Amino acid sequence: MSTYDPTRTYTAAVIGAGSGGLTLAIGLAGFDHEVVLIEAAKVGGDCTNVGCVPSKALLHAASSGVEDPLAFARAKAQDLNETEAEEMDEHDQIHLVRGWARLTGRSEPHVVEVTAADGSVSEVRADNVIICAGSAPVSFPIDGLDPDMLVTNENVFELSSIPGRIVLIGGGAISLEMATAFCDMGSEVDIIELNDRLIGNDDPLVSETIQAALEARGIGVHTGTSIERFDGRTAHLEDGNTIGDVDKVLLAVGRKARFGDLGLDAAGVETSERGIVADTWGATSVDKIWAVGDVTGNTLTTHGANSIGRRTVRAIALPLPRIGSPRVRANAVYSRPQIASVGVSMDELNAMSPAGRRRYEIPIADIDRGYTDDVEHGVAMVDVERFTGKILRAAIVGPAAAEIIGIFTMAIDHDIGLRKMFGMVHPYPSYAQLVGRLADDFARDSYPVMHKEWLQMMRGRLTDRFRS
Amino acid sequence: MSTYDPTRTYTAAVIGAGSGGLTLAIGLAGFDHEVVLIEAAKVGGDCTNVGCVPSKALLHAASSGVEDPLAFARAKAQDLNETEAEEMDEHDQIHLVRGWARLTGRSEPHVVEVTAADGSVSEVRADNVIICAGSAPVSFPIDGLDPDMLVTNENVFELSSIPGRIVLIGGGAISLEMATAFCDMGSEVDIIELNDRLIGNDDPLVSETIQAALEARGIGVHTGTSIERFDGRTAHLEDGNTIGDVDKVLLAVGRKARFGDLGLDAAGVETSERGIVADTWGATSVDKIWAVGDVTGNTLTTHGANSIGRRTVRAIALPLPRIGSPRVRANAVYSRPQIASVGVSMDELNAMSPAGRRRYEIPIADIDRGYTDDVEHGVAMVDVERFTGKILRAAIVGPAAAEIIGIFTMAIDHDIGLRKMFGMVHPYPSYAQLVGRLADDFARDSYPVMHKEWLQMMRGRLTDRFRS
Repeated sequence: MSTYDPTRTYTAAVIGAGSGGLTLAIGLAGFDHEVVLIEAAKVGGDCTNVGCVPSKALLHAASSGVEDPLAFARAKAQDLNETEAEEMDEHDQIHLVRGWARLTGRSEPHVVEVTAADGSVSEVRADNVIICAGSAPVSFPIDGLDPDMLVTNENVFELSSIPGRIVLIGGGAISLEMATAFCDMGSEVDIIELNDRLIGNDDPLVSETIQAALEARGIGVHTGTSIERFDGRTAHLEDGNTIGDVDKVLLAVGRKARFGDLGLDAAGVETSERGIVADTWGATSVDKIWAVGDVTGNTLTTHGANSIGRRTVRAIALPLPRIGSPRVRANAVYSRPQIASVGVSMDELNAMSPAGRRRYEIPIADIDRGYTDDVEHGVAMVDVERFTGKILRAAIVGPAAAEIIGIFTMAIDHDIGLRKMFGMVHPYPSYAQLVGRLADDFARDSYPVMHKEWLQMMRGRLTDRFRS
Repeated sequence: MSTYDPTRTYTAAVIGAGSGGLTLAIGLAGFDHEVVLIEAAKVGGDCTNVGCVPSKALLHAASSGVEDPLAFARAKAQDLNETEAEEMDEHDQIHLVRGWARLTGRSEPHVVEVTAADGSVSEVRADNVIICAGSAPVSFPIDGLDPDMLVTNENVFELSSIPGRIVLIGGGAISLEMATAFCDMGSEVDIIELNDRLIGNDDPLVSETIQAALEARGIGVHTGTSIERFDGRTAHLEDGNTIGDVDKVLLAVGRKARFGDLGLDAAGVETSERGIVADTWGATSVDKIWAVGDVTGNTLTTHGANSIGRRTVRAIALPLPRIGSPRVRANAVYSRPQIASVGVSMDELNAMSPAGRRRYEIPIADIDRGYTDDVEHGVAMVDVERFTGKILRAAIVGPAAAEIIGIFTMAIDHDIGLRKMFGMVHPYPSYAQLVGRLADDFARDSYPVMHKEWLQMMRGRLTDRFRS
């Protein structure tokens, strides 16, 4: 393990060794910079230890007959954590420091105070400070709930046995993935979502389809309600229904940026309710203090932290102007069926002039592979500009959705609309043929009336320009 | 059912109602042309009845606990066949005629003779004849083999019970898919391939990886050998080994174009050993006689027949010059793991100057999702031009390979090299992240020495130009 020298000034002090922090540390070290990486908990952060990695391992194990799926998931998380920790320890240019970091407000160079587990305090000097402190699950008290019954993503994988019945509070990614896994393991599963639909920030057709798919497997979906109180093992819902014999309750209603104790005031770093205010390069209100990942609220995914983190590496390591927008980032939920979407948000889409766009939908059952594989609940949808077929937003609920969405991601990255995608050959019978079917539908509508489509597109563009 | 009028001249007589024929009939009808569709056997052709559809249904059923997977596969094929036949029957502009077609040599309009099952002969007059007669499995006698033990793709789905041991002759797509399905259903499976590796037209690393994956599941893979003779239920191989207790033998060593009895000589249509000679628009040596799909030997896939067939529709229906190359077509094998590849053939790749290109490989186990899902045997590889990273060829062995290959297909269609793909964001942890890893590896090699890479690329381009 390479130790750091408290008298020396490093290129960067990276606070947090999760997805963002590792991207920064490894990225800057790749440009021959010396980095101090400060982590109080586990290397790999939430993703490796209590997020993406154990959840995907659990989903795999639960659906493929592994004997103890929870133990499998724990082992996968632990092994990867150890590998990542070793890599950091052995890296010549990355100096891993264990402890809690706090900005002191002293700058040129910035000074970060690190409090180790034994209470000892040391200082790190660095030209740049990059805050990658992540997020924590949102929590709230539930009247009458035995604290032993409550879990979050931070300890659900530690369960020693499979609960007979688990109630998942929240209708987002964590909840849908855990619903899939626990259902596969034989638990009775109920999802409770305050909003009137699951995956509330996605297309309503996505919500409807995934709900039908989960219900078809016997998962209870209770939307537009919440738990009023627990009475022993019985949950009483606001809508008057009850769920009895509950063994565990997983609280997964969202994540909040973790920035309370970082000395941001001392350093003058601007924050908002969502987190540290940062631009798409990770730059904060203070020169050479950067923030990347969940702690900014700009992204809550590993690939988001990685993508923005790479821009921050470039901004620090290369003498290039900060021009260029971030690449578009898809969202994916690894439930069964999977859910993936890419493009503008639903709010942005709904704000656009309907005149200038068209929408296409295709049930997965109408794709030949959906037919051979008996996919009852699945759908793909795309909202496009008229005439060009430029992809505004695409969403898929179905097998391999998280893989197929990459075709739309590339289309957006390189401005390839459905017009240019028409004729693209997808292997028969792949699920990706949904892309071809959507392009065919667009061509059928669009080609015979091209001049009208062009006029409508221009009308839409003008409307959107003068509105904004 | 709309009957046809033998005195009338139609826009097209389409011979064969498989993937190619249906594309032509539906496509031309979509442009308001009247089409006579001639089919002696089943609507939907091999794909629907004895190919893609039942094989994918069998793979799904065998791996998901369906009670009688063979019955499931038969039902899926039959239902789709009936749906397609009904659609053709009910289509106002498509006149389905049952019988064997034969060109008469009379032209302007072309006259096709149709012999029905009852021996009655009728004539169809059409401005265009489009031959979509498909292909048949290559067959050869095996010394000592009980004919009752022999099946091909044409009757394997008709088996009334799951064989205790099945021997698959051939190491191509059909064989690997059936090996996967029969292994899942509990059969002992052996593959015998004369070539020294499976999937001999793909990258050797593909062959090696799929072989390891199959062997890990207990499938016997015997390459570089063949069956000398059968002695009862025992197969004696050329290499001296024997396989005992064989119940069924599936012959899947290739397909040959089906064009022997079509009156091609009378009409003067040029043929080769591979099939009817046709260009990428389906045009043959005779004006207004076209050939599409397996019968040409230019493609042996449904998506190939569909893609070329669409060009033929355009050539017939629209007064546009025949310019533009066909879109690149990926190949996919739906074994477990899946195999997919796209780009130039291995022969074309190997003929290119090595100076101008680079190769990157990544084991699927090195992708985080491969790690969580315990994918031991899987790999992705890409051969690219230096400097630009233009995709020459990409191949994947792994989960969802047939879906992810679409990203490379789009890259080739729109000339997006790894340089432009660098920075593209793939959802974490999707298998599609393999694309990002390959682009990262390219960037790591290429960016620090850009001018050298440019020189090397130019050297490669010049070498290739003066060689050809």
